Amino acid sequence: MADVKRILQEVQAGRLDIERASELLQATSKLDYATLDLERAERTGFPEVVYGAGKSVEQLIGIMERLREHQELVLVTRVNDNQAQHVQERWPDIQYEKEAALLISSREPLKPVREGYVAVVAAGTSDWSVAQEAAWTVRCFGSEARVIADVGVAGIHRLFERLEEIRGASVVVCVAGMEGALASVLAGLVDIPVIAVPTSVGYGANFGGVSALLSMLNSCATGVAVVNIDNGFGAGYMAGMIHRCSTK
Amino acid sequence: MADVKRILQEVQAGRLDIERASELLQATSKLDYATLDLERAERTGFPEVVYGAGKSVEQLIGIMERLREHQELVLVTRVNDNQAQHVQERWPDIQYEKEAALLISSREPLKPVREGYVAVVAAGTSDWSVAQEAAWTVRCFGSEARVIADVGVAGIHRLFERLEEIRGASVVVCVAGMEGALASVLAGLVDIPVIAVPTSVGYGANFGGVSALLSMLNSCATGVAVVNIDNGFGAGYMAGMIHRCSTK
Amino acid sequence: MADVKRILQEVQAGRLDIERASELLQATSKLDYATLDLERAERTGFPEVVYGAGKSVEQLIGIMERLREHQELVLVTRVNDNQAQHVQERWPDIQYEKEAALLISSREPLKPVREGYVAVVAAGTSDWSVAQEAAWTVRCFGSEARVIADVGVAGIHRLFERLEEIRGASVVVCVAGMEGALASVLAGLVDIPVIAVPTSVGYGANFGGVSALLSMLNSCATGVAVVNIDNGFGAGYMAGMIHRCSTK
Amino acid sequence: MADVKRILQEVQAGRLDIERASELLQATSKLDYATLDLERAERTGFPEVVYGAGKSVEQLIGIMERLREHQELVLVTRVNDNQAQHVQERWPDIQYEKEAALLISSREPLKPVREGYVAVVAAGTSDWSVAQEAAWTVRCFGSEARVIADVGVAGIHRLFERLEEIRGASVVVCVAGMEGALASVLAGLVDIPVIAVPTSVGYGANFGGVSALLSMLNSCATGVAVVNIDNGFGAGYMAGMIHRCSTK
Amino acid sequence: MADVKRILQEVQAGRLDIERASELLQATSKLDYATLDLERAERTGFPEVVYGAGKSVEQLIGIMERLREHQELVLVTRVNDNQAQHVQERWPDIQYEKEAALLISSREPLKPVREGYVAVVAAGTSDWSVAQEAAWTVRCFGSEARVIADVGVAGIHRLFERLEEIRGASVVVCVAGMEGALASVLAGLVDIPVIAVPTSVGYGANFGGVSALLSMLNSCATGVAVVNIDNGFGAGYMAGMIHRCSTK
Amino acid sequence: MADVKRILQEVQAGRLDIERASELLQATSKLDYATLDLERAERTGFPEVVYGAGKSVEQLIGIMERLREHQELVLVTRVNDNQAQHVQERWPDIQYEKEAALLISSREPLKPVREGYVAVVAAGTSDWSVAQEAAWTVRCFGSEARVIADVGVAGIHRLFERLEEIRGASVVVCVAGMEGALASVLAGLVDIPVIAVPTSVGYGANFGGVSALLSMLNSCATGVAVVNIDNGFGAGYMAGMIHRCSTK
Amino acid sequence: MADVKRILQEVQAGRLDIERASELLQATSKLDYATLDLERAERTGFPEVVYGAGKSVEQLIGIMERLREHQELVLVTRVNDNQAQHVQERWPDIQYEKEAALLISSREPLKPVREGYVAVVAAGTSDWSVAQEAAWTVRCFGSEARVIADVGVAGIHRLFERLEEIRGASVVVCVAGMEGALASVLAGLVDIPVIAVPTSVGYGANFGGVSALLSMLNSCATGVAVVNIDNGFGAGYMAGMIHRCSTK
Amino acid sequence: MADVKRILQEVQAGRLDIERASELLQATSKLDYATLDLERAERTGFPEVVYGAGKSVEQLIGIMERLREHQELVLVTRVNDNQAQHVQERWPDIQYEKEAALLISSREPLKPVREGYVAVVAAGTSDWSVAQEAAWTVRCFGSEARVIADVGVAGIHRLFERLEEIRGASVVVCVAGMEGALASVLAGLVDIPVIAVPTSVGYGANFGGVSALLSMLNSCATGVAVVNIDNGFGAGYMAGMIHRCSTK
Repeated sequence: MADVKRILQEVQAGRLDIERASELLQATSKLDYATLDLERAERTGFPEVVYGAGKSVEQLIGIMERLREHQELVLVTRVNDNQAQHVQERWPDIQYEKEAALLISSREPLKPVREGYVAVVAAGTSDWSVAQEAAWTVRCFGSEARVIADVGVAGIHRLFERLEEIRGASVVVCVAGMEGALASVLAGLVDIPVIAVPTSVGYGANFGGVSALLSMLNSCATGVAVVNIDNGFGAGYMAGMIHRCSTK
Repeated sequence: MADVKRILQEVQAGRLDIERASELLQATSKLDYATLDLERAERTGFPEVVYGAGKSVEQLIGIMERLREHQELVLVTRVNDNQAQHVQERWPDIQYEKEAALLISSREPLKPVREGYVAVVAAGTSDWSVAQEAAWTVRCFGSEARVIADVGVAGIHRLFERLEEIRGASVVVCVAGMEGALASVLAGLVDIPVIAVPTSVGYGANFGGVSALLSMLNSCATGVAVVNIDNGFGAGYMAGMIHRCSTK
Repeated sequence: MADVKRILQEVQAGRLDIERASELLQATSKLDYATLDLERAERTGFPEVVYGAGKSVEQLIGIMERLREHQELVLVTRVNDNQAQHVQERWPDIQYEKEAALLISSREPLKPVREGYVAVVAAGTSDWSVAQEAAWTVRCFGSEARVIADVGVAGIHRLFERLEEIRGASVVVCVAGMEGALASVLAGLVDIPVIAVPTSVGYGANFGGVSALLSMLNSCATGVAVVNIDNGFGAGYMAGMIHRCSTK
Repeated sequence: MADVKRILQEVQAGRLDIERASELLQATSKLDYATLDLERAERTGFPEVVYGAGKSVEQLIGIMERLREHQELVLVTRVNDNQAQHVQERWPDIQYEKEAALLISSREPLKPVREGYVAVVAAGTSDWSVAQEAAWTVRCFGSEARVIADVGVAGIHRLFERLEEIRGASVVVCVAGMEGALASVLAGLVDIPVIAVPTSVGYGANFGGVSALLSMLNSCATGVAVVNIDNGFGAGYMAGMIHRCSTK
Repeated sequence: MADVKRILQEVQAGRLDIERASELLQATSKLDYATLDLERAERTGFPEVVYGAGKSVEQLIGIMERLREHQELVLVTRVNDNQAQHVQERWPDIQYEKEAALLISSREPLKPVREGYVAVVAAGTSDWSVAQEAAWTVRCFGSEARVIADVGVAGIHRLFERLEEIRGASVVVCVAGMEGALASVLAGLVDIPVIAVPTSVGYGANFGGVSALLSMLNSCATGVAVVNIDNGFGAGYMAGMIHRCSTK
Repeated sequence: MADVKRILQEVQAGRLDIERASELLQATSKLDYATLDLERAERTGFPEVVYGAGKSVEQLIGIMERLREHQELVLVTRVNDNQAQHVQERWPDIQYEKEAALLISSREPLKPVREGYVAVVAAGTSDWSVAQEAAWTVRCFGSEARVIADVGVAGIHRLFERLEEIRGASVVVCVAGMEGALASVLAGLVDIPVIAVPTSVGYGANFGGVSALLSMLNSCATGVAVVNIDNGFGAGYMAGMIHRCSTK
Repeated sequence: MADVKRILQEVQAGRLDIERASELLQATSKLDYATLDLERAERTGFPEVVYGAGKSVEQLIGIMERLREHQELVLVTRVNDNQAQHVQERWPDIQYEKEAALLISSREPLKPVREGYVAVVAAGTSDWSVAQEAAWTVRCFGSEARVIADVGVAGIHRLFERLEEIRGASVVVCVAGMEGALASVLAGLVDIPVIAVPTSVGYGANFGGVSALLSMLNSCATGVAVVNIDNGFGAGYMAGMIHRCSTK
Repeated sequence: MADVKRILQEVQAGRLDIERASELLQATSKLDYATLDLERAERTGFPEVVYGAGKSVEQLIGIMERLREHQELVLVTRVNDNQAQHVQERWPDIQYEKEAALLISSREPLKPVREGYVAVVAAGTSDWSVAQEAAWTVRCFGSEARVIADVGVAGIHRLFERLEEIRGASVVVCVAGMEGALASVLAGLVDIPVIAVPTSVGYGANFGGVSALLSMLNSCATGVAVVNIDNGFGAGYMAGMIHRCSTK
């Protein structure tokens, strides 16, 4: 609201006529919005993210160039090998997380800035890529992420062996395809929020992840909320946000 | 094939002309089918079952009267209190299993005729009625049924406490609504067939049991086959059949 | 693990033979589970919740009687007027939140035990009941809940007037039916987690809330996770959990 | 009806016998239909449009050749680069709008023939192509189209900055994928008709545009009507028609 | 913006300090929104509409009382006989359109304020009620509405008999259930905008109007846009808006 | 075309001026349509049918009164007991087929007017009502209908016993719910057209007849075409039409 | 039944003992089935049809070789250019209908063997291929097929111009994609059976033909039955069967 | 429980202090789980199965190497030719079942270890591959599998010719696509369990196997349970399990 007061002072001082002041106030409010947005970006450490899929190499580099000027951190999701190669030729310092299909451009090396960690729990080996996307998004938030994979309910003892580590986290991201039962089992065993990501892993009546999605929405255990199918980034973002506020 | 030979003997003996014999053979084959069916009924101990829903009291009593003459056992499914009351007024010896919505008319008291048992495992208290329908159907097959209820995955320790009993069975019927995760967890813990019954328990995006149905079809654990939503009778029938052949 | 050590001490002291000790250890581990669960209940302040719909008055009172002995707080969801009246006749101190369809039995009056609050934002007046269910669930967690209703996007200025209050919360529950656009708009305006509850409000191609559910899952803004249709309790639980950990 | 009168005059004048006149009248009515159709084409300035997808280059050129003879304007939708190249080799004057995937053959350069304009508002950059298809269709109608892109609700201030321009239009085409919330927000802010086009942009539970389609149909704001998924041409046609009648 | 200037003048005149002016400007902008909204209501002649379904008689009368003070016209949709009776007892001058399920409270008798008319075309007699809802909404906009009913495509000659009247309108509302083919046929015969309303009339694989909805969205004829199933009000609103701008 | 010639003769004779003749020709063409329609009704023996569901007794009697004047036969479908009782009080000669929910008003008693018959084959006893609706519709066409019920595939010998009778028909209507397998089996056994009617009989994942509908559409045997769920009238109409043309 | 009598005569004559006769009768009944099937094939002129899609050239030639020995006519559906080329190299006399994707191997040239014809009516040019598949299937039945294309309801005058020809047919096959309205319009204009084929032509909310399928199932006009999406062969088969019986 | 007793004995003997014993007991229980799992594998003869689809040749060989060390039998499903070739180059003794897309590595040649057999019944030739997957899975269980193919209901006599062989089995796997009617027909003819596998064979409204899946779930005959679409392995596993227990 600093600008508003400055304008009022100018009016009071007689250095600004009313028509012009009225216009400026209007413009200010527009600016205000943008400003507010920039402030938010700075505050959250999570400015605009680029969705890589379907973008040409030229478009990608163009966007990244502009963002790198203003942002400490630039995250590009759903990147393929070809895009990554060209981007890294342009800026060799950029990190390519192949399994997560992410490009990370950070002025400072990523490292946890707060205590505690987010547990990213994946049911099967095929859920690995989505789990990695979630984990690296959490790390971009400045939080530690631990990936605990291949603990699906078909062999539930594997989950129990890792339970202590999961319970030690501030928030859990649960990644599962097929019938997605892991989310319910997990939520019944921990007392921290579970962010569930259905994956499109499976076949037949799996319907591209709908089966797991419905399972997770209908979880008989409380403390589960769901993001879109295969949306590891969305889950990581949510978990990062929760973890950050748990340590404020 | 006895009739066929008798006809042929009559032809051979000249007591039957060819036109008539040809007709008789045709009729015989029709009879054959029916006979075969009756034999099957006797052999399986599971003759025609009556679907009670939507039938008037008069219709129900009429059908039951005819069946009681020919069958040791008459099972009526999806019965309501009013139907049951009228039937029991007519035949006080008939057993009404209110929770299972079944009427059972048996000349001999139901009791197990073979070793071993079927475990009917239900996730929540709301699945109770479907579980009872399954259990009583198993009992009509002459097998023991043990109902193990309220062992849903939201508190998985409850399942582990009953695991030994479940593992002792020859076959498991798994009844679950909401996200139906119990089927996967159970199948990962036992090495006997699991017949899964999705129930319409739940709300919102449960879609009348579709969520649980899809979960069970997509089970990440092997050894699960699925029957229709709320179809406790179908699951009990299948389990009874498997148990019977496991002890032949 | 106290019991385990006691048994080992008895063995060490020669007061317990190995067969018996082995049995006791097995029993202990079962107990352990239950114990662990009770500990969790105490720790979270959120023990078993009763789902009221479909239960007879007798069943409801029976269950509540048992729970009231062991739990500081008993929450019953989806209660109707008749159930509430009978329960309050039995225990006049029990609180009936008619709009939220909740019964709350608490030894101590509910009041916030930590700083900050949860904002429960509802799009239309028809979402009121679900919003109240969410808000009272949050209050049962010992957190403050502020309901901000009738701020749907059809008249978006109403939302802006309340934005400051929403931004001051630790977490937002967003309740909306019809097209559920509020969740996306809200998530674009705040930097705290948004738990979205689609409601079945609407008609025509609304499909009992599926339209809003899909909208919320596909939110173009980040920081949204979704619970089941009309599941105000689930959203309140999740929000309560997040708020609690944000102030630990 | 000119032909009918001419025939009647011939009959009156005795130059035409009744049998033949009766036949001619029948033929005329057939012709009438066609005539009527041609008249409509001339009147609306929007004669037959060619759907390019799946047509061979030969077919396309054949059809266009015939239409160019009779129509001032020929519009071909869903064209690919290869088709465009061949058509332009044949008629270098034809305009290829690559982003809109349109070929426009117009005897006169396209320019607005009436006051006012249609605002084509697109939520994200990925909706660009559909928006261009709508805009160029509007221009073929002889109306001005202004494209206002990247004003999705995730950063709603961007929409407010362009609101005045949108409000100045006679009709709005709103193009949005994912959750399609923009249509509701927009309709709440303007008092002109909003034609909404859901796009197939998104992934997971987006189901190829169904999520946005349902959102738009269930808009909580009034004054929204919807066309098929990705149907920029249909929306442009509708908007052009409305704009034309608003200035008649 | 009048208020803003007044505040600035007070500041300039030294009658208002900056802190207070800053606060007032903030409050003003809030007011601005509301003002803007009220202005819009006055300008469009279409202020807030009340959705009657599910509201108690008390609620309904309360809301109407408040609205009648500020609005020339109050429209209540989805009203039942009981609600209507009580409201008319309170204000005998209010008009109850039983077939359209609408209550109309207007200071002046409704009559067309502009030339031309909207044609509301209904396929079958069962679509009558939705057609009436659309027609009366149009009339509330100050436009004439002509209902042309029972012209479904099963006897297409009925449509042709009324074609001239339909073609004379400025915009058409097309109401059809079952397979909804009327919208396509109609749009092929007229060169004015067609707003299509699918109705839930039909049975079997009609799925509550989805069949007609899909038909209308996939219309092979151009110039059709669709509103939600049974949403006569929405279609009337859209048509009224278009007609109004066609005569500005 | 008689009228057209008469007008032309008047013109030729100088008794009619051209303006007026032109108008008359236009009016004639309208009349022509209606005429054509009446002719069609007389020719097919199947004039307008009344859909009874949802109509008040007054409406029903009003419509029937008008139709009885012009039509030999009036058929009302989906009638309930109350409607039937009132109609029969008014016209005691009208036939009420309770199971088929039909009212039949015929000047002459219904009896077959051509050789051969239509076989209406029903899978289960619950399909009885739909089968009766089909059979009586066939009879209204002046064809014989034979109902062959309870020959579902669960006991396929029952079907074989009736096969000869089915093969003797000119066309088969196949009525089945649940999984609708009867249509495929039947079409593989006969070489006459099979009109399949899925019924909403079943529960769970039957989805109100969708399961049977899909089965019938995907029949592995050729010679099957499908009508809407529970649409016995539609199937009877189709079968009656085919049978009539098979004996022309 | 010839074989049965022969066996009985042998028994009567003492040339066959009963055991052996009994076995022969059993074998005969098996043979009977096959025989019956062969007889049916000869009688209908429509023996086994080969589904070409997914078969290797070798498989295809192998199957055709065997069938050509026993059948006058061999029809292969869903053939691609490569398959056709190889088959024609092997048997140059075989006819390849490229647009219909059919291979026809017939000992005698196809020509109508009965009076009358089947009208195959297609809505748009994109429905051409399915219409051709239907038409050629009809021709294989020995009936004449006339294809009437591009008469969709968007320009309904085109349909009226061809109406006389359509009305002259014995049965109509109606092929339409998008919203499939042609089936309803057509059935309202003719009094012969309409076999409707929905096609997958369209995009957006067309869902691969589901929109047209639902339209056709919900036709407001009577006398329509539906086959599977794009199933031109199935519709041609049904129409051929009906036409054949209409001229028996 | 051997380890537990050993630890207790050490404590009793004073050779182990309580802290350490407590830790060991905890570790033991973890080990127990794994042990139990290994025991289960040995007992069932069915250890971990590898899902081949999507795995690189390197990954596949790596996993198989590890498993071949510990397991008598290694089964890899959904293998393509390229994967198979590389694996067989590495281990020439491994069996590649191309039609079933399986790799089988077995120390001993597969041969039945128990009496009786499983009948794998397939409707059409296109279901062959899924049927082979089921059959070979059964053989890996040490049971005999007999494949009875091409007995679909379109020519039901083919099924009757093989009925005796099917009835002789202990359990039936029924593989069918399109409308999946075979499962119901089969279950009505046998009194052994039927495990039904819907296949994605078909087109149009088949929806990738959903039509067959719904048919099988809604079977009017009892004694059917269903696995996921195309899941031959799952059905074979279930059947193998049932057969094994039927001969224990």
